[in-house]
Amino acid sequence: MRGSHLFTKTRREAPKDEVSKNAQLLIRAGYIHKELAGVYSLLPLGLRVIKKIEQVIREEMEAIGAQEGALSSLQDPDIWKKTDRWEGKADDIWLKTKLANNTELGLAFSHEEPWTRIMQDHVNSYRDLPFSAYHFAQKFRNELRAKSGLMRGREFLMKDLYSFSKNQEELDSFYEDVRVAYENVFKRVGIGNTTYFTFATGGVFSKWSHEFQTVSEAGEDTIYIDNEKRIAVNKEVYTDDVLKDLGLTKENLIEAKSIEVGNIFKLGTHYSDALGLVFQDEDGHEKPVVMGSYGIGLGRLMGTVAEILSDEKGLVWPESIAPFTYHIVSLAGGDEATEARATSLYEAMITRGISVLYDDREVRAGEKFADSDLIGIPYRIVVGKKSTDDLFEVIRRSNGEVLSMTRDELVGG
Amino acid sequence: MRGSHLFTKTRREAPKDEVSKNAQLLIRAGYIHKELAGVYSLLPLGLRVIKKIEQVIREEMEAIGAQEGALSSLQDPDIWKKTDRWEGKADDIWLKTKLANNTELGLAFSHEEPWTRIMQDHVNSYRDLPFSAYHFAQKFRNELRAKSGLMRGREFLMKDLYSFSKNQEELDSFYEDVRVAYENVFKRVGIGNTTYFTFATGGVFSKWSHEFQTVSEAGEDTIYIDNEKRIAVNKEVYTDDVLKDLGLTKENLIEAKSIEVGNIFKLGTHYSDALGLVFQDEDGHEKPVVMGSYGIGLGRLMGTVAEILSDEKGLVWPESIAPFTYHIVSLAGGDEATEARATSLYEAMITRGISVLYDDREVRAGEKFADSDLIGIPYRIVVGKKSTDDLFEVIRRSNGEVLSMTRDELVGG
Repeated sequence: MRGSHLFTKTRREAPKDEVSKNAQLLIRAGYIHKELAGVYSLLPLGLRVIKKIEQVIREEMEAIGAQEGALSSLQDPDIWKKTDRWEGKADDIWLKTKLANNTELGLAFSHEEPWTRIMQDHVNSYRDLPFSAYHFAQKFRNELRAKSGLMRGREFLMKDLYSFSKNQEELDSFYEDVRVAYENVFKRVGIGNTTYFTFATGGVFSKWSHEFQTVSEAGEDTIYIDNEKRIAVNKEVYTDDVLKDLGLTKENLIEAKSIEVGNIFKLGTHYSDALGLVFQDEDGHEKPVVMGSYGIGLGRLMGTVAEILSDEKGLVWPESIAPFTYHIVSLAGGDEATEARATSLYEAMITRGISVLYDDREVRAGEKFADSDLIGIPYRIVVGKKSTDDLFEVIRRSNGEVLSMTRDELVGG
Repeated sequence: MRGSHLFTKTRREAPKDEVSKNAQLLIRAGYIHKELAGVYSLLPLGLRVIKKIEQVIREEMEAIGAQEGALSSLQDPDIWKKTDRWEGKADDIWLKTKLANNTELGLAFSHEEPWTRIMQDHVNSYRDLPFSAYHFAQKFRNELRAKSGLMRGREFLMKDLYSFSKNQEELDSFYEDVRVAYENVFKRVGIGNTTYFTFATGGVFSKWSHEFQTVSEAGEDTIYIDNEKRIAVNKEVYTDDVLKDLGLTKENLIEAKSIEVGNIFKLGTHYSDALGLVFQDEDGHEKPVVMGSYGIGLGRLMGTVAEILSDEKGLVWPESIAPFTYHIVSLAGGDEATEARATSLYEAMITRGISVLYDDREVRAGEKFADSDLIGIPYRIVVGKKSTDDLFEVIRRSNGEVLSMTRDELVGG
């Protein structure tokens, strides 16, 4: 894409009411627009990152056999009343709305209930199990404070996955598959090293739930990390008993602030009991389906990468989720031969399907470099008057390393 | 995908409260789930169709240079008050919600206002214009009645495109590009022949708006078609004056019920005036940006195809948006050699990246054929005990034509 065509502009300053580093950077670089506190729209660069994150997650979901759907945001109170999540304590979380006929509806903050109800139409016998289904769906939460940028929104995109099994063993086995899939996701988006499988509060049906926590000062959680075992314990369950249970000793644990980038949860038969999702087993007995639920927030993940992989100059994307892989910065400054060289390289690269943003704008070199640093595309190709036809200076955004690459190397000829 | 893996089941009957043919068929075939009147979730088959429609539209949008974003559903009342679309008459359309601090927010029924506000950050000078931006976004409307299935929902996915130009000529030129792009979309999804460019009520800034109307008894609109000129007039502007204006004569017009599958609208400076979206022209004068807006509802489009291309046996998808291109129906009935032949063909096809659903379920042949007709995949490959290793019976769903194809032809070897 040509920079002169991209409608977004970078800006020197973020809105005054934006206090989080992740949203400040993403707004300044033209990735997102703040609509309201806790509500952000995606501009073309931001959408490209989210689409790449989505595709990474989709591939890992397909690899464990999960099937994709897309459930509605508007929610029928009936099913949420059955699980006691419509009124009372749950009322703090909901954003609700009313139809013209005064019927009250909810805006989904999660989707356990509707997925469970759908499966009543599709599960009869043990032969139908196990399986799993997921979707990428907008969620809404009535957050009191929303000052953490993309970390805690009133509207946000999540991937949530639900598993439906005959028994605990099948659930345990799939749960382990998801753990590996999630580790793959966090590795692939560039935060594998700083993300820990973390023990957290369980529920009626399991001793623990598990979170994936990424170390960051911007996090709202506190965890205790055992670096050798590559696991952590959430402060909420950090007791002597728990440590003993997990075979951990206080001396080996390091306290850190962290961002919850994913969570996985064994639901057991909680939702299937409440909503009547049953199957006939091999002996003709009716049994409740055993469920699990597994979530990753895509906006939060983009915000986390923006938060921890950026530097004082701006964003630093890993190749896997960068909006573009290469950023051609033309320093033609009116020199036609230079501009022709830059344009020819750009055209050759896009013809080969290479992902490249071409800064062909007529602005000062300093502004182009500052924008390029702020936008954070992995490789910058500088085309100046001194570049030869065949050799280009390529700068790696993450560490400033300067490479010299031939046109053939760049075009993959 | 293997049919035994797909979690959805077909059903003989749709829910009793579902009166529309499109939703009845799509529910029975396992494409969608009805959450509430006017609110449907997408199951895996339905999502595949929507994703294909989305990709067709995206390609046509990219071809006219539009840039993709993704705006929020939650809406700031401030900007809608400025255009007088928050209260009064507009109140019938909105679904609204309240934050914990009692702030009222809206759920987007359209996105002119937020797109216009975003552009204030990105448009300064005539050099920034023209350009266009679009997104695929969930919309919400407080529909009184919602009995038309996917035709008129309380929550639905739309592609909406907005153009930003310096003057009327640029708008007119882009408007014409969109008209062609929309015609391409409707052709590509299989309803080109029955869809008419239709003159409808204009606004303050234009004599007409234009709709794309597809002839169907399920439609809520009435149009008058000139088949020779391939244009139509919406009943709402069907007057002698208008016909004269358009050079049409009553004798050549045929009345028909129709579904509005798209609309395009010249907004002029209505929104930019109200929200202060201005640019500096070449002489340094401040001018309002000239806008247009252009919409296609994806769910409605899926519903329209389901409505008009189906038959008494079920759905009939055109290849371009079918969930799969081929449906292998194995009639092994316990015969291992037949099953091996079907499985081998399936595996060879998916290895080549061919889109195929393989009905490997252990159910009666009659049930498999009925399901295959209902699901409506374009080509059914029957693998029975009489099929030879190399020759397969292939039935075209749309007209029942029986083809004989070799394994090499099917696998594309």
